[in-house]
Amino acid sequence: MKGGLVSESGAVLLSERRPTPRADGPDAVVAAIRGFISHLAAAGDGVPAGVGLAVPGLVSADTALYATNLGWRDVPATAFTALDIPVMLGHDVRTGGLAESVLGAGRGIPDFLFLPIGTGIAGAMILHGEPYGGASGWGGEIGHIPVFPEGEQCACGQLGCLETYASAASVGRRYSLRAGLEGVRAEQVVSSDDPVAVEVWDEAVEALSVALATYTLLLDPTMIVLGGGLAEAGPALFDPVRTRLVKRLAFRDAPPLVPAALGVDAGMLGAALLGWRAAGRPELGSGWAVDVRPEPLVS
Amino acid sequence: MKGGLVSESGAVLLSERRPTPRADGPDAVVAAIRGFISHLAAAGDGVPAGVGLAVPGLVSADTALYATNLGWRDVPATAFTALDIPVMLGHDVRTGGLAESVLGAGRGIPDFLFLPIGTGIAGAMILHGEPYGGASGWGGEIGHIPVFPEGEQCACGQLGCLETYASAASVGRRYSLRAGLEGVRAEQVVSSDDPVAVEVWDEAVEALSVALATYTLLLDPTMIVLGGGLAEAGPALFDPVRTRLVKRLAFRDAPPLVPAALGVDAGMLGAALLGWRAAGRPELGSGWAVDVRPEPLVS
Repeated sequence: MKGGLVSESGAVLLSERRPTPRADGPDAVVAAIRGFISHLAAAGDGVPAGVGLAVPGLVSADTALYATNLGWRDVPATAFTALDIPVMLGHDVRTGGLAESVLGAGRGIPDFLFLPIGTGIAGAMILHGEPYGGASGWGGEIGHIPVFPEGEQCACGQLGCLETYASAASVGRRYSLRAGLEGVRAEQVVSSDDPVAVEVWDEAVEALSVALATYTLLLDPTMIVLGGGLAEAGPALFDPVRTRLVKRLAFRDAPPLVPAALGVDAGMLGAALLGWRAAGRPELGSGWAVDVRPEPLVS
Repeated sequence: MKGGLVSESGAVLLSERRPTPRADGPDAVVAAIRGFISHLAAAGDGVPAGVGLAVPGLVSADTALYATNLGWRDVPATAFTALDIPVMLGHDVRTGGLAESVLGAGRGIPDFLFLPIGTGIAGAMILHGEPYGGASGWGGEIGHIPVFPEGEQCACGQLGCLETYASAASVGRRYSLRAGLEGVRAEQVVSSDDPVAVEVWDEAVEALSVALATYTLLLDPTMIVLGGGLAEAGPALFDPVRTRLVKRLAFRDAPPLVPAALGVDAGMLGAALLGWRAAGRPELGSGWAVDVRPEPLVS
């Protein structure tokens, strides 16, 4: 997990990573977060005004309702800190999308898609300037829409999910399987001219173009922001996806595809925005000039 | 075109249909609407408080920006009436969705999809209680999402669009073509046990299940309201679509599929709501008890 101490003017005073003690159970993770927050807070000038937290699964502003990976069920926001200050929770991908919206590639754009492509794929739909999570918080599962309805079975059990063709993990896995190798990483597949690698990458690009055409026709975004590890591929990703997206759309323009601006800091910066909202300062953020680290800390 | 005079309490005092003089050009259609509105207004007790209009194409509250079918470009709302009263425009499908949301099957449900399946297919996405049209008003084109990415070419030029498999017109056309017949209508295909008819209907159902699974995973609606001529098929549509939608979703529940409540009056009633909004009475509608005609006037 990552954490930071972010000032009223957007200065990142401290930013650290710690392991997530998942194996020790749900309560141990909550306790680790509590300790992490106290540690970050102690580095500041007095008690922080608020805490923001980006968490996986189903989440409301004041409760981490459900997270399979971590075993959480209805953990109140206040459980995450020993400090007597306001806390606001957000969904992990949507909190990254909030940061891209307020501080990053989507600054000033009320309606866009933020699509981080990493080990998995999920999207943050920014609609009317805010992340939209659906009726019950399960929205944005673009990684599991059926792009090839009779396609391969995804780990989730469904057929032909975008994620099973186009996530970084899937690109590596599908190539390794076909080439009879082990543990080849997506970035190696992208840069290879081995015909099998070209084929696997082509299928990932095709899957992405179907998903983005679908999103465009349904939600008419001003632009699509691609992030996550796979977006580091740059033109090798953007150029063919753009070409195929344009080709799939007959009666409307394709929205521009642009790279995310905040890299791996999106979640932490979005959490900082939530922290300032918790503190009653929702107007903060739009004026911040954020120093973005050029290289990902983790892939 | 259809028009009506609707009172403050939701009473439909008058409701009529007139031909749309499309062949006479864009201005003739505007003039015909102007005449129709004056006629409806004259039947009331004094001058109406406002006018609402559901129009096709790209539309803002005060301008009909663009409609290919009618040849409109930037027609101001005020051009549609000779009366000196406020006018509000809405997109045709989204105005029907507004009516289903305020008065119909979606009453009290902030987030759902209204999907009328008729000659064509387009959806009204109700999000946070209001129809959402996307960044520039072109959203909701679920009829043209690529459900079978390598499928048949749609009249729009794209490949594998939902509409080209599952609209009433397509079901009739595809069956007629395969059976070597002419002009068979969708309702005949649905009720036939001819193996070719069963196959065509099966493909329509499959296309719908892919589209609705996609919508569900992206937008997490509370429910999906099916309307339009094809929804008159009742269980022959709802049952197999529901079964396949459930089957396509592995890690989340399928939202309930429910029939639209307002039939062919949805657009007119939605326009009435817009008219009352134009008149400064946005609160009207939720208390109305609407008499819905059981049979469609047009298919």
